[in-house]
Amino acid sequence: MSLINRLDTRSDDFRTRLHALLAFEASEDASIERAVADILLDVRTRGDGAVLEYTHRFDRVQAASIRELDIPRADWAAALEALPREQRAALEAAADRIRSYHERQRTETWTYTEPDGTVLGQKVTPLDRVGLYVPGGKAAYPSSLLMNAIPAKVAGVGEVVMVTPTPDGVRNPMVLAAAAIAGVDRAIAIGGAQAVGALAYGTPSIAPVDKIVGPGNAYVAAAKRRVYGTVGIDMIAGPSEILVICDGNTPADWIAMDLFSQAEHDELAQAILLCPDAGYIAQVEAAIARLLPTMPRAQIIRTSLANRGALILVRDLEEACAIANDIAPEHLEISTAEPERWADLIRHAGAIFMGTHSSESLGDYCAGPNHVLPTSRTARFSSPLGVYDFQKRSSLIKVSGAGARTLGRVAATLAHGEGLQAHARSAEYRLDDGSAS
Amino acid sequence: MSLINRLDTRSDDFRTRLHALLAFEASEDASIERAVADILLDVRTRGDGAVLEYTHRFDRVQAASIRELDIPRADWAAALEALPREQRAALEAAADRIRSYHERQRTETWTYTEPDGTVLGQKVTPLDRVGLYVPGGKAAYPSSLLMNAIPAKVAGVGEVVMVTPTPDGVRNPMVLAAAAIAGVDRAIAIGGAQAVGALAYGTPSIAPVDKIVGPGNAYVAAAKRRVYGTVGIDMIAGPSEILVICDGNTPADWIAMDLFSQAEHDELAQAILLCPDAGYIAQVEAAIARLLPTMPRAQIIRTSLANRGALILVRDLEEACAIANDIAPEHLEISTAEPERWADLIRHAGAIFMGTHSSESLGDYCAGPNHVLPTSRTARFSSPLGVYDFQKRSSLIKVSGAGARTLGRVAATLAHGEGLQAHARSAEYRLDDGSAS
Repeated sequence: MSLINRLDTRSDDFRTRLHALLAFEASEDASIERAVADILLDVRTRGDGAVLEYTHRFDRVQAASIRELDIPRADWAAALEALPREQRAALEAAADRIRSYHERQRTETWTYTEPDGTVLGQKVTPLDRVGLYVPGGKAAYPSSLLMNAIPAKVAGVGEVVMVTPTPDGVRNPMVLAAAAIAGVDRAIAIGGAQAVGALAYGTPSIAPVDKIVGPGNAYVAAAKRRVYGTVGIDMIAGPSEILVICDGNTPADWIAMDLFSQAEHDELAQAILLCPDAGYIAQVEAAIARLLPTMPRAQIIRTSLANRGALILVRDLEEACAIANDIAPEHLEISTAEPERWADLIRHAGAIFMGTHSSESLGDYCAGPNHVLPTSRTARFSSPLGVYDFQKRSSLIKVSGAGARTLGRVAATLAHGEGLQAHARSAEYRLDDGSAS
Repeated sequence: MSLINRLDTRSDDFRTRLHALLAFEASEDASIERAVADILLDVRTRGDGAVLEYTHRFDRVQAASIRELDIPRADWAAALEALPREQRAALEAAADRIRSYHERQRTETWTYTEPDGTVLGQKVTPLDRVGLYVPGGKAAYPSSLLMNAIPAKVAGVGEVVMVTPTPDGVRNPMVLAAAAIAGVDRAIAIGGAQAVGALAYGTPSIAPVDKIVGPGNAYVAAAKRRVYGTVGIDMIAGPSEILVICDGNTPADWIAMDLFSQAEHDELAQAILLCPDAGYIAQVEAAIARLLPTMPRAQIIRTSLANRGALILVRDLEEACAIANDIAPEHLEISTAEPERWADLIRHAGAIFMGTHSSESLGDYCAGPNHVLPTSRTARFSSPLGVYDFQKRSSLIKVSGAGARTLGRVAATLAHGEGLQAHARSAEYRLDDGSAS
């Protein structure tokens, strides 16, 4: 098996090979689906008792009540105090930058008045209550907590309730510290489908939320999909992806490491380079070979690059941009001179990193924009997680007496055309400005 | 069975009765799910051939190619020309108002530059291609076509492809006329799960779209749910709802007709009045009894009101607003003096109609705001269909050399804390401003 796939857009089989590399089908596991359906029904029916029972069974944590599983604020504060000074400063710097970027995403209520006095507009309000899932154990990323909780608080969400499993009672202090920094309102040491069910349906001890966000394992993802409709959910993420467009002038080691930084997430992660310079591609491949053995997560990186990674020789950077739009990558690095020129050609990408200094890892932690991004080509129709995911809109319609006379005729004509006579008559009553009753 | 349920917030069983009335569980029909899964797989595998076969089987329309099922633009134009003048004027007036309201929803790209030269922002782009489902037969509402297609075109969507079944070859001229007015780009006479599959996966004759919107029957809804992820979809709508808050000073006939205008949609539709004046409630009930026999859709209205409708006596308008927030209705009419005072208390509603002249029917057709609204309490976390549903965002990140030195330290610290060393090293390379290779 070669280190990484090599493609050339001039080959006849290029499209076929590219699409084979990109193909990823999220599979549904019937046994997970069944287990999750049972757990959700049980939580919905028995509430706290069911949550306590599953927490005992799956996390080996015994508690007589949900209150015992609440992680007190004093513990978050203690975790924050106990952090090494550099880590605390880094978390706080990241939180400040994330907050400042997301504040620019806030949408405000607007209205306008028409000449006849009719007022139209849109009222923007935050969600009342949001549930934030934070995985336990090794997949517990404090950066992910910041990226999910801060936009919710910036939106003005009244209560952000975090759930996180603590297998064998082991808590992650960096996650608790991040919760304190992000302004989370409550933290409960529960996880899995039972935590998703408790948040969606509510129990006597856990008020139901309006939306559930945050990453989780296959059980959590299946549970989120099932409660969607009862509550809102964020997108279910696929494997992470990076696409690098490089003109061949960035240090080859930098690009190799950028590809690694995606590949180290997961064996299914995808790292692809598009470059018009064959000599440079060879340099990057050499850098990969040289640097790979030095990486602690070399085994994951190796599998990811061999199965799903690629170095692709393109005719020119215009062609690279066209391919990028076809791939619609989660992360796109444009590591070239004049990156804006190429960014202008990009229609579909979760995040666009421009210039040689903008490594994806800076965006993952602290540049400011969100690191929860659309994967698996969904950037064609969806957006990074943002403040807009925690606000919703209500149309505002205040029709004046004069407005009702104009609009009433139009509405009545169309309603009669659709065979909806009550609609028509309701509009017609308003034509007479109060004398119709 | 009484004409309509009567509740009183002062009764001990009020909450129980209210929640029983509101309860609505969208049921999944296993046979529909199986049929739809088979059709989708078949369309994905066999493309045009499968679509043609199902169109023959379900709509009794035989065609040798998809091209034969394309409804030529000349036919839309002819349908528009043939409309009675008043209907055409009404459709055009509605389209103009819908367009002008939605133009205010457009979001623009923004960026800002930090003191060290780092540029951050968000690029906003329209979706490339959108599929619009328009039901055939009696449920074909031209107003619905306008409400779905116009926001997409205002967003700048390159191609809006409409699909609509034409059972036995019968086309709805008002729908074709609306397509011409709304600026739809292509219309194909196919429907059902096969049309959804063709739009989602693409066939040799139908380019795949990025999002599918528009109402449909249970098969269409199941198909949309299944292709979600491959493409975006709008919300699957539940039964339509109206909640009226009235101070008792609006003509009782008007309120009765407003309740009818919701109830006439569907036996499952829900119409509820909240009022602090018992005498007025009696007047509305009398108006219902008197007016109901005059309605062409009396049978549907009767069933809807008896099973799911209610006249609720409240203590005061503050309590009415609190109940409205709990219900989170699709449509809320505040038929009172000083409606803004009460609208300010409303956090959750799809659309808020203020004042006695603002009947829901005006909003359904031509006030300007969208009539595709969140149902079944989803207004707690979702919004009316809008231009924002046809735009998406990409984060923009251009880190300067100086920025990379500041951000690189923060990112590296956090990445080491999360055990992601390639992330850390990728950031650390940029600390040295180009000399790291």
